[in-house]
Amino acid sequence: MNYGAVEHHAYDTYCYPVNKDELKINIKTGKDITQVFLIYGDPFCTEKVDGKWKWSSTRLELTERAEMQSHYWWQTTVVPPFKRCKYFFELRCGDETKLYFEDGFFTPEEVEQNADSHVLFIFPWMNPVDICTHPKWAEQTVWYQIFPARFCHGENPAYTKEILPWAGPDKAVDNSEQYGGNIQGIIDRLDYLEQLGINGLYLNPINLATSQHKYDTTDYLEIDPEFGTKEKLCELVKKAHSRGMRVMLDGVFNHSGWFFFAWQDVIKNRENSKYADWYMVNDFSFKDRPCDNSAKGKYFAFAFADPMPKLNTNNPQVRDYICKVCETWVKEYDIDAIRLDVANEISHVLCNELRTRMHALKDDFFIVGEIWNHAMPWLRGDQFDSVINYPLRTAIMDFALIPGTTTRVLEQQINHCLHMYYSQTERVLLNQLDSHDTVRLVTKTGDKDLTMLQFALLFMFPGSTCIYYGTEVLLEGEHDPDCRRCMPWDGIEAGTYKEELSFMKGLISLRRKHPAITANKTEFVYKDEDSANAGESRVVRIIKTDETTGERVAGIFNFGNKACAASLSQKDTVLSKRYFNGASVEAKGFVIYTME
Amino acid sequence: MNYGAVEHHAYDTYCYPVNKDELKINIKTGKDITQVFLIYGDPFCTEKVDGKWKWSSTRLELTERAEMQSHYWWQTTVVPPFKRCKYFFELRCGDETKLYFEDGFFTPEEVEQNADSHVLFIFPWMNPVDICTHPKWAEQTVWYQIFPARFCHGENPAYTKEILPWAGPDKAVDNSEQYGGNIQGIIDRLDYLEQLGINGLYLNPINLATSQHKYDTTDYLEIDPEFGTKEKLCELVKKAHSRGMRVMLDGVFNHSGWFFFAWQDVIKNRENSKYADWYMVNDFSFKDRPCDNSAKGKYFAFAFADPMPKLNTNNPQVRDYICKVCETWVKEYDIDAIRLDVANEISHVLCNELRTRMHALKDDFFIVGEIWNHAMPWLRGDQFDSVINYPLRTAIMDFALIPGTTTRVLEQQINHCLHMYYSQTERVLLNQLDSHDTVRLVTKTGDKDLTMLQFALLFMFPGSTCIYYGTEVLLEGEHDPDCRRCMPWDGIEAGTYKEELSFMKGLISLRRKHPAITANKTEFVYKDEDSANAGESRVVRIIKTDETTGERVAGIFNFGNKACAASLSQKDTVLSKRYFNGASVEAKGFVIYTME
Repeated sequence: MNYGAVEHHAYDTYCYPVNKDELKINIKTGKDITQVFLIYGDPFCTEKVDGKWKWSSTRLELTERAEMQSHYWWQTTVVPPFKRCKYFFELRCGDETKLYFEDGFFTPEEVEQNADSHVLFIFPWMNPVDICTHPKWAEQTVWYQIFPARFCHGENPAYTKEILPWAGPDKAVDNSEQYGGNIQGIIDRLDYLEQLGINGLYLNPINLATSQHKYDTTDYLEIDPEFGTKEKLCELVKKAHSRGMRVMLDGVFNHSGWFFFAWQDVIKNRENSKYADWYMVNDFSFKDRPCDNSAKGKYFAFAFADPMPKLNTNNPQVRDYICKVCETWVKEYDIDAIRLDVANEISHVLCNELRTRMHALKDDFFIVGEIWNHAMPWLRGDQFDSVINYPLRTAIMDFALIPGTTTRVLEQQINHCLHMYYSQTERVLLNQLDSHDTVRLVTKTGDKDLTMLQFALLFMFPGSTCIYYGTEVLLEGEHDPDCRRCMPWDGIEAGTYKEELSFMKGLISLRRKHPAITANKTEFVYKDEDSANAGESRVVRIIKTDETTGERVAGIFNFGNKACAASLSQKDTVLSKRYFNGASVEAKGFVIYTME
Repeated sequence: MNYGAVEHHAYDTYCYPVNKDELKINIKTGKDITQVFLIYGDPFCTEKVDGKWKWSSTRLELTERAEMQSHYWWQTTVVPPFKRCKYFFELRCGDETKLYFEDGFFTPEEVEQNADSHVLFIFPWMNPVDICTHPKWAEQTVWYQIFPARFCHGENPAYTKEILPWAGPDKAVDNSEQYGGNIQGIIDRLDYLEQLGINGLYLNPINLATSQHKYDTTDYLEIDPEFGTKEKLCELVKKAHSRGMRVMLDGVFNHSGWFFFAWQDVIKNRENSKYADWYMVNDFSFKDRPCDNSAKGKYFAFAFADPMPKLNTNNPQVRDYICKVCETWVKEYDIDAIRLDVANEISHVLCNELRTRMHALKDDFFIVGEIWNHAMPWLRGDQFDSVINYPLRTAIMDFALIPGTTTRVLEQQINHCLHMYYSQTERVLLNQLDSHDTVRLVTKTGDKDLTMLQFALLFMFPGSTCIYYGTEVLLEGEHDPDCRRCMPWDGIEAGTYKEELSFMKGLISLRRKHPAITANKTEFVYKDEDSANAGESRVVRIIKTDETTGERVAGIFNFGNKACAASLSQKDTVLSKRYFNGASVEAKGFVIYTME
């Protein structure tokens, strides 16, 4: 038995409550393990066996198993009547049986002989206040991410600076070009967004700032006049709400801009500034202009970007200021969510305080962190609700774009993604394939069909799915800043993107109508005919199951280069498809259908 | 390569700051791994290589390695100049080399080809406020745990109830017998404790309660008159402080006693009580006397102990009440620490709030949780400082008492204990071998020499070491309630325990004088002559090193049944010994010495 590959703790994703009644217990083992049993019971329940009192327990086989790169992930759910659970595991590797306790592996005979000398795992108490919960609405949301400067230009009479004429979709852009996208523009397009099926608007920063991307905030409490006014933002939120759309703003609190009042005061008064500890200044003799200050360690900045000095979120005054800003955004604009920029560099203490204070104002408030790596420390229930799901993006893109990657590898990667965090958190991760921070997927892929295929697959997983503006019409764009081109309204109105729009609209509506699609439970299916050599298939066959209703939805996604069989039964209903002829799916095609 | 046995995350004990400058990076691998390198650097530092910008990194071999049951634990420490660190690992298994990233294992060639497609680990920012810290004083403390009712009877004129005459050490006791131990008794024995070298008093509950053990609190703000008054407690704390002793009280907040005002109100007013939500009542028709209410699930209690109804620490009012009680203990009595009873069943939110509020009052306050299992969720820096170190107790006791357990197994268990938590936390874990909750070690062991040998070994490890009253004179006692016998003052005064007392005094003083003894760094050494069959030795040879001063202290502990060689060099100085003749250590003997 590969003992080294077995891992379990009575915490984090291995053991946690999903709600006040149900406790998930999962274990990671090597692939040599053929069967796993959980022996569990209340720590204080005993029964008389052969005249002797012994611990009263139940033995349960773990039948749910997900394959990962080097492990199996075995899962089960129990309902402890007294909110506490003591347990150990029985592992089978062919004929070999070992009992796995917190203090190691023992044979059944060893345990029999030294009944007292092994330490059982325990989940001590399922306190409701510690259970990781997220707003239900986020599970059903399809977000639309808007880079305000480039989405749509609407009337903005108070802003008189000259702007460039709206550019076409083929025009590469840089960060200095000002095309006049603004909040009124978004309001003007709410019909369009509603028709697309969008029920969440996520706006990149709109506060007063210097650059076009507005990540260098000058004033967190003012709207950049280029985009509009506070009243205009209120109007947007109100109108969005009336259409059932939530609104998320971008919170850039890791660093301020150069012209933020506190930094200006530090530049002026140096160590004597009352804001001296609002930043991370190591040497107050830094130069009073953005240059190489941060590279020389004079003060800490985002990356080595001198104009973006890092706010010191270790300072309680700074934390209070940031929380107050966010509270103001809720009180004045009635927003529903915040996406935190560079969220992994701000202090955990702030993340915790922010959650507490936002929940006091709006109990279903939603906080998403921009974290590209494994984010467990922020997702234990006391800080963020969600992070941007980069691992899922990587899994799908690598599979689509790296030739020779097999479905088996994709399955392992996807299973890893689906079990990285608590299952309730998996349901609200921000799934997206491109954004203002990445190359546009269609540009990266260089193939419209293969791009659409990746989106179809993305939409099959649980999460708070997000579409970057323009992606629904396959807008092109290289890495930042080119991924921020002008939205091609002319083409949209001329019907140029009819197929793309109808495709995306179809996918979005499915998530609303079929709980199986947003369900966690995902099963990969393999068919011998998909590949000459077993395991080398590029056909993805998955079955999603909603455990409440029992509904099942299947999908066949052909990433290979020849057609694959897709023999649906008479009772199956096709929900969405491309290049599907009723019996087979062509290369780069797919079919999604309900299974009877 | 055993991929399944490799584990690393950029959080918890795998990657964490020990202070504002140093970042520990550790990795767990199978025992097939022969070499590990860390490739690390600032995420944003680049350098020009062959005309191309690439990430600027350093390659470092991990030379510190601890062996565990199925793994090696490799460790290193880096100093990131910009407080952030990006990294991956190079693993060697003989001739095979794999690079290990957050998204899996790759060959160097694969990484060369697809430089963008692997995800490096990242520790995003070492925010001081998130760094796990503990009071320095706790590292140097040797606690003395006092069960007040049985330690010493002093004058207590206000208490007139009849008490039993003080019993001898051979008299088995139960929980109903009242011998009159009290706070004045402790004050009377401060000289004794100071001479022993004690610098921390940890008192079992002293608040007004019904039972002799006082874990069923009636009033958290009153001192049980059996033990004395508030003034008496103040006097004790003041006198202890003047001798350099800290004082820790027992906080019993998982449940109240039956006669606590809030529970009495619930009994009287049921669902209409304003304290109805202070408890976890499922059915307000419960019987108004302790019987089978909790077994029937009418309300939740500690275990199924009806007289101890569980306080609802999910309720903010209850949390505030508990915090206020603890604040009062600091303000009125000036205590330095709290040991939390059944600490794993109270809500994490309370644990966090309590830490914050106690630190606001006394910034070096110390909180210890009674947790018998792996306690990582409470020890990430935002809740407790320490827990009672049961795993270390089990490791030492199992080795001593289970024949055939080899030193190699002990090493693996000890290494597991030494790396369970952050290294700064390891330095303050409450190490003890017996307590009011366990059988007395000498009774369990049935052998005075073997008992003393276990204590000598316990004292070699980092931690806030704790002696249960009477253990210094090897007081006997079976499991609770018998482990709470009367302290044998007559014998102590008659000189009966001279050897035991001098032994314990010696051990305690060593921890104060030799930083190597309390250091984390622990190396096990094996000598061929210790056993006919390699690895079957019962001789423990360890070397402790203080990494600041370079001081080294060695110990040879003979748990075998024949003498073992102990050839010290001329320059070595013996610090403590039993059954050591200068050249060998007899069975059950030991020698501790400084190494030049």
